[in-house]
Amino acid sequence: MNTTGKVIRCRAATHWKPGAPLAIEEIEVAPPKAKEVRIKIVATGLCGTEMKMLANPNSHNNYPIILGHEGAGIVESVGEGVSTVKTGDKVITLFLSLFLPQCGECASCLNPGGNFCVQFKQSKTGLMSDGTSRFTCKGKPVYHFGNTSTFSEYTVIKISVTKIDAVAPLEKVCLISCGFSTGYGAAITTAKVTPGSSCAVFGLGGVGLSVIMGCKAAGAARIIGVDVNKDKFEKAKEVGATECINPQDFEKPIQEVLFDMTGAGVEFCFEAIGNPATVAAALASCHESHGVCVIVGLLAAGTQLNISGWLFFSGRSLKGSVFGGWKSRENVSKLVSDYMAKKFNLDPLITHTLNLDKINEAVELMKTGKCIRCVLLL
Amino acid sequence: MNTTGKVIRCRAATHWKPGAPLAIEEIEVAPPKAKEVRIKIVATGLCGTEMKMLANPNSHNNYPIILGHEGAGIVESVGEGVSTVKTGDKVITLFLSLFLPQCGECASCLNPGGNFCVQFKQSKTGLMSDGTSRFTCKGKPVYHFGNTSTFSEYTVIKISVTKIDAVAPLEKVCLISCGFSTGYGAAITTAKVTPGSSCAVFGLGGVGLSVIMGCKAAGAARIIGVDVNKDKFEKAKEVGATECINPQDFEKPIQEVLFDMTGAGVEFCFEAIGNPATVAAALASCHESHGVCVIVGLLAAGTQLNISGWLFFSGRSLKGSVFGGWKSRENVSKLVSDYMAKKFNLDPLITHTLNLDKINEAVELMKTGKCIRCVLLL
Repeated sequence: MNTTGKVIRCRAATHWKPGAPLAIEEIEVAPPKAKEVRIKIVATGLCGTEMKMLANPNSHNNYPIILGHEGAGIVESVGEGVSTVKTGDKVITLFLSLFLPQCGECASCLNPGGNFCVQFKQSKTGLMSDGTSRFTCKGKPVYHFGNTSTFSEYTVIKISVTKIDAVAPLEKVCLISCGFSTGYGAAITTAKVTPGSSCAVFGLGGVGLSVIMGCKAAGAARIIGVDVNKDKFEKAKEVGATECINPQDFEKPIQEVLFDMTGAGVEFCFEAIGNPATVAAALASCHESHGVCVIVGLLAAGTQLNISGWLFFSGRSLKGSVFGGWKSRENVSKLVSDYMAKKFNLDPLITHTLNLDKINEAVELMKTGKCIRCVLLL
Repeated sequence: MNTTGKVIRCRAATHWKPGAPLAIEEIEVAPPKAKEVRIKIVATGLCGTEMKMLANPNSHNNYPIILGHEGAGIVESVGEGVSTVKTGDKVITLFLSLFLPQCGECASCLNPGGNFCVQFKQSKTGLMSDGTSRFTCKGKPVYHFGNTSTFSEYTVIKISVTKIDAVAPLEKVCLISCGFSTGYGAAITTAKVTPGSSCAVFGLGGVGLSVIMGCKAAGAARIIGVDVNKDKFEKAKEVGATECINPQDFEKPIQEVLFDMTGAGVEFCFEAIGNPATVAAALASCHESHGVCVIVGLLAAGTQLNISGWLFFSGRSLKGSVFGGWKSRENVSKLVSDYMAKKFNLDPLITHTLNLDKINEAVELMKTGKCIRCVLLL
């Protein structure tokens, strides 16, 4: 049935108020306007960002809202002026379109060194750029989230989708939309890990594991996983860690342990937790002369880093990294091609796969720490 | 007269106790032992490091001491096992041999990315590695400083001297020993300033001016000097600043001023003061996506940097730089060759030249801020 230009009725996980579970309900999705794309979402990851939003009642005021950003699907129809994708294309949603649409024209996009597109910053209103929503539920408008809202069978997105290989398995490559690329790119693109080097990764969740995969792909000789939960060590070794340590097993600070282990500090260190004390420890764990520490974990808004100035004196670097430093539209499709070419494996990251109906179960699984990523099928 | 193997009597500026002026006195300089070189110092800069040591009575306990590190001279004789220089060679003393001797064998020296040689850290005892001094004055041993002690007509140094072009003017190129190279290299080697880029330099002393020269040599399109003393602007423009601003002329924070001026922040920012608040402002002044901030100024021991974590989120980098990132022995002689090839000009940095006798006058000149570098002739 051709649905172009028509309102589509479908199911979505709607969040009505802080603290409430997500409710699977029928919603209406309006057709895409100019520069917008309507997508049938096939699979979406449940990412730590949603977990933080569900846990923090003050994270936003846009209720009701449809969350979800780590999505993959098929273009249902496109609005006027959309030339990069067409009906039937397999696509990945670019959550980070919030700040990383890769407009292709701003100073960030034109510079080879970063990816924080400054041309287009979507407002945090949760509305499309005309000030309205494409979603309604029970007669009420429903807010968008991060220009993605992938916890819905259909969603509408402005600009930021990228066409991918037509045979890519969407229930796997949806992770390339966010978590995997964030970690993998932090190693490959931001830190530029060198062959034969030593690396340490603080935090062995989904992003940390992806960092390990990036270090391995870059040819690191030694990849030390660091986490206070030793249940995470097996998986870390499966994806490439050469050894794992628990800071709680040592009396001395972890940076001293890493100096003891490596003789002179690790050459590349990654903080994949988002904790200011761990950032400081990770920087201190770096090689004095050419060590590079990358902050991959998301620090809470307002976080102040308290770092000894002396750590920089000898030449260390501290770098930020967002979405793994990848320019979004250009690289997401390439990463999907790399996946198809078996350059990396997403399977170890996907510990659970559930239908959208079971999204609250997925939320509970994530809380236990036994789940790295739960992919939801729509 | 051949002085090889003999004690040399000569004059030196000796510092007997905290707060005292420097005293020009006759001293004895013993012959070099194994791996040591005795040098006739011809010229030496008076650097901010000495100014800080003279101002701070707690900076060390090694009295009496001969300070000075920014030196250039001629090899008088060499000890056993010295093959890199011979009697009669023109050399530059490498103060930073304290931590940057470029042993050529450690992980830092073997890595192209840094210069903090970890193989050899001279103790802070102020003595040679056999636990004795080569200097005596009035029958008392006199401490060495930084393995250089260039405020003496003759000094003894272990390992870290580098042979330079035989026709180089020592009264100019002595600055390559420290201040000039520290600033110039921060731009060229540490930040890797790119052609056409925008730069800002906080602090327009000798090191800051050298940073400007490095930015200019690297082809920066825009170089903004920042200082609270507008008397420094003329010189900054002379060496390459395209404009200069005084933070006190604005009501808004300097980072906002620089964002207004550049639209999106400066691509390369240098802190050449050594103040934690200025480091934070310099990082905030950087381009959100690919901005690089280099700490060139020496932060006081124990300084904690208090920096908003959010500044890193979008991709900014904060890098340390010591001696401009140059591997010392390898690059100092190259820098002298570059000077001889007129790739940069040291004249604007040398505002005063005095005989060693007038060293206390030089100290007073430096205090006034009217003096960028005073070269002392021996």
